[in-house]
Parts: sequence; structure tokens; C-alpha cells
Amino acid sequence: MLQRSVFFLSDRTGITAETLGHSLLTQFDGIEWKKHYASFLDSAAKVQEIIDRINTIAKQEGQPSLVFSTLLDPVILASVRQADCYLIDFFESCLGVLETALQQSPVRIPGRSHILGQDASYFRRIAAIQYALNSDDGSNSKILADADVILVGVSRSGKTPVCVYLALQYGVLAANYPFTPEDMGVVRLPSLLQPLREKLFGLTLSTSRLQAVRVERYPGSHYASFVECQRELQWQNELYQQFNIPFIDTTGVSIEEISASIINRMRLERRLYGT
Amino acid sequence: MLQRSVFFLSDRTGITAETLGHSLLTQFDGIEWKKHYASFLDSAAKVQEIIDRINTIAKQEGQPSLVFSTLLDPVILASVRQADCYLIDFFESCLGVLETALQQSPVRIPGRSHILGQDASYFRRIAAIQYALNSDDGSNSKILADADVILVGVSRSGKTPVCVYLALQYGVLAANYPFTPEDMGVVRLPSLLQPLREKLFGLTLSTSRLQAVRVERYPGSHYASFVECQRELQWQNELYQQFNIPFIDTTGVSIEEISASIINRMRLERRLYGT
Repeated sequence: MLQRSVFFLSDRTGITAETLGHSLLTQFDGIEWKKHYASFLDSAAKVQEIIDRINTIAKQEGQPSLVFSTLLDPVILASVRQADCYLIDFFESCLGVLETALQQSPVRIPGRSHILGQDASYFRRIAAIQYALNSDDGSNSKILADADVILVGVSRSGKTPVCVYLALQYGVLAANYPFTPEDMGVVRLPSLLQPLREKLFGLTLSTSRLQAVRVERYPGSHYASFVECQRELQWQNELYQQFNIPFIDTTGVSIEEISASIINRMRLERRLYGT
Repeated sequence: MLQRSVFFLSDRTGITAETLGHSLLTQFDGIEWKKHYASFLDSAAKVQEIIDRINTIAKQEGQPSLVFSTLLDPVILASVRQADCYLIDFFESCLGVLETALQQSPVRIPGRSHILGQDASYFRRIAAIQYALNSDDGSNSKILADADVILVGVSRSGKTPVCVYLALQYGVLAANYPFTPEDMGVVRLPSLLQPLREKLFGLTLSTSRLQAVRVERYPGSHYASFVECQRELQWQNELYQQFNIPFIDTTGVSIEEISASIINRMRLERRLYGT
């Protein structure tokens, strides 16, 4: 497979540069990316060090590397531009249109993307994360009543990571109710959930995927057997259908994608960035 | 304050469009943004609906809205281009340079940014989140020994959200040890932490900030009093100094920024995206 070196340069966290670069790279197949991260580039010495590395690697590989940048300092940018690379300068590519649209110059101050918002937003986010952790066993009806959304599904269907992501990314209060074998006599909603039907969102996944995840945790157990996984999923999926619970099959779907789908389909309000 | 409407359009999750758009908007001061989100735009009907909204709002506000897009479908893009808006097309702005650099055409397939990576990466991330939750009380020496990094700090110094973010964003195993009043007789490392000194990273914050967070939780308690917060922080900061524990003052710093600093200063390896 072809190999190419890629650099992610930033004055600050590098999160924006990495998000952009990663998105773009997925659009090119058949190349193995060797990734180099350089965040908090806030001194001439650090910048020179990274430029030397870019040039050295270009020489070794016989071709210029790709460089994704969210650098804002014009002096630093000018020196990076001299390096042996293809520069994808995020701010340069996009600020022009905005300047025209807003008839206003950008402030060009680094580190604003992930600056702390208003206090309300900060507390909201911390509270949402704490909520996701506290509600992780799903057994407290008072906690469940506060939820913006309650993720349901059998054990190891991936509810917890999605709850945590919903809290972090969107500030949403996401609770988590795991169906247990005790719930699975007849196909009916566990009593705790009955008054909360509109908040429920189901996760499901393929039997073999569920089994793989459970085997990872308790190899050789009945809990991780194919037949038990199949039985639980069958009960669960009948429940979703019978009670019209919206659900998503998470097999092969990332946490981000599952979370964004839930926000979208449950029409949940985002609670961060004053939105 | 000036108001402007902003749209975030995407074929899929919208996370890339939102992250990049948010970064750009922070570079313009004095404007209040009215944000409209439209993700999973995968049908002609949905696209027409959003174009109508863009045009209606432009008419109401007497000026075109801003539109951030990570749409890839050329037909959909062409119709958005006809709307009354300033379009910031992230892929269009950047794919050109990449095409030249790589001498290869992009595949233009939506939804690849947050696609599920290899199984190893998926399990790693889930395991890291689970680890952050399991290690949240910091009392288990076996769990602590597995950590890539152990965040230390007084109660409510913000360790948990950072651990969770480190897990989600970087796949790093981040544990969490809260200093308790019992630790605070003399200035010495709690015995659990003594063999793990190289993994420690400290959080600190201003007394008034800590007090605000504690009051939010237990108003009127001794725990939330200014004098108690001051006493604990003083002990903690002496400890950081005496044992050369790297630390960050998180007052007014976002979870992303704290996390990226830790990755950077502890030289932690990213464990996602095969990096």
C-alpha cells in the first residue's frame, strides 16, 4: 500500500485540524497515512523543529508531506509555507468568504475554538457527564425521569459510550436502561419504563457482534453464548416493534454516528454553545 | 448585538461541519449566532425543505445566511448553491490541494469521517470509556496500574470529564484519583500513588471556581466553604511542587483544551484511527 506522511499543526489543541484532516483523508482510498501531531505550536523554536521534521521526512520519502493547519499567526504560517509540503490551511481557505459575508475582519486569535463558554454551558456539560455516569445502571426512577432520552438495549449493546458521547458533545441528559433476563418473560415494557415511553430509544446489533463483545468480557459464559445473545435480541427487537420504540442497528456504526442519529430522530435540543 | 443565522448541512452526522463552523465563527466578535442544524440530508425532499428554510430566513433577515457544508453529493450541492446564502463548502475548499498532492481523485462518499474503524480500534475505545468509568473512584491499585495517565486533584476539580474525553477522543486509559481530606495530613503522596509517580498529572483551579462547583453540589456544606476549598488546594499545590507532578490550572479552560494539553505534555500515544 502507498504511504504518505501527514502533519496536523495547530497553535492550540489541534482538535479542529485533526477533525478536518481526518475527514478529508477518508476521501482517498488505498493510502496508508503516517500521522504526525504537533499542537500548541506557540514558539519559534517549536515551529522550527516541526519544519525541520517536515523537510526531513519529505526528503526521506522523496515527496512533500501533507500538512493540515489551523495556525493563525501570520509569521508562523509564513515559515510553514516555506517547508517542503502541501499546505491545507483551514482558516485561509474559509475565512475569506466569511469576511465578505460579515463585512468584518476576523480577530485571528488562536485557541478560541475550544475556549470555555459561558458558565451555564460549562455546568451543563459537566452535569450531563455526571448524569450519564450516575444513571448508568438505569435502576433509579427519579434519575430516569430527568432524562432527555433513555437508551435501552440488552447488556453490552453499547449504551454507555453513546450516553457519554451525547453528554460531552451535545450536553444532553442521556440515561441508560439495560434489559436484563428478568425483564424478558413476556414482551412488555419493564415497569420503570412504562411512564417514560416517549423518551425511549433502542439500540440493537447483530447476534454475532453482541457475542463478540460479550466474549471479550466473559469468555465461555452462558451470557456470552450465541444462543443466549440470540434469545435476548429476539425479545428486545419484538419489544421495539410492539411498542413502537425507535431504534438503530449499531453493527458497524460509530459512536458519533449513533449519537447524531439519536439527536436527529428524537429531535433533541443541543444544550451547548448556547444553541 | 448583531444577529446572523448560520446553517450546518451534512449528508451524515454533521459533526465535522459543526466543529469546523464553530471554529470559524469564534474568529468574529460581536455577533450573536442563530444556529440551525440539518444533518442526514440524504433525500431530495429533505434538501428542498432546508433550502426553503434558508431562503425564508434570508428574506426575513434581509441578508443571506451563512451555510457551512460537508455535503458531498454534487446534485445536492448544486441546489444548495442556488439558495440565498454564503456557502462555506469544506470539502470543496480543501479537496483540490489534496487531489493535486496525491494525484488521485477523492471518492466523494459521504459518512466516512465517523465510520467505524477496524475492530481493534472500536474495542480499544469502548474499553477506554469503560476503564474511565470503572476507575472513577481511584481506589483500586490494580486498575490504577493499567492507566496510561492518572489524573489527580481534590474533589470536584474536574477529573472525571477529562478522563472520559481522553478515552473518547484519544482512546487513552485515563484513571482518576481524588485527594481526600484523609490524604492531607502531611505533604506526601498517598501510598497507592507512590509506585505510579510517572503517570500522575495534576489538575488545579482557583479557590473561587472550586467553591462555585462545590456549592452547586452541596450548598452550605463545610465541603463547599471557601476556607475548606483553600485548605485543600493549598495542600494539593504544595504536593504538585514537592513531587514535581506536572499540572494544569483548569480555571476557564475547556475539557478539550485540558485533554489536549495532557496528551501533549505527557507525550501520550493516541490509540485511535490506527495512529
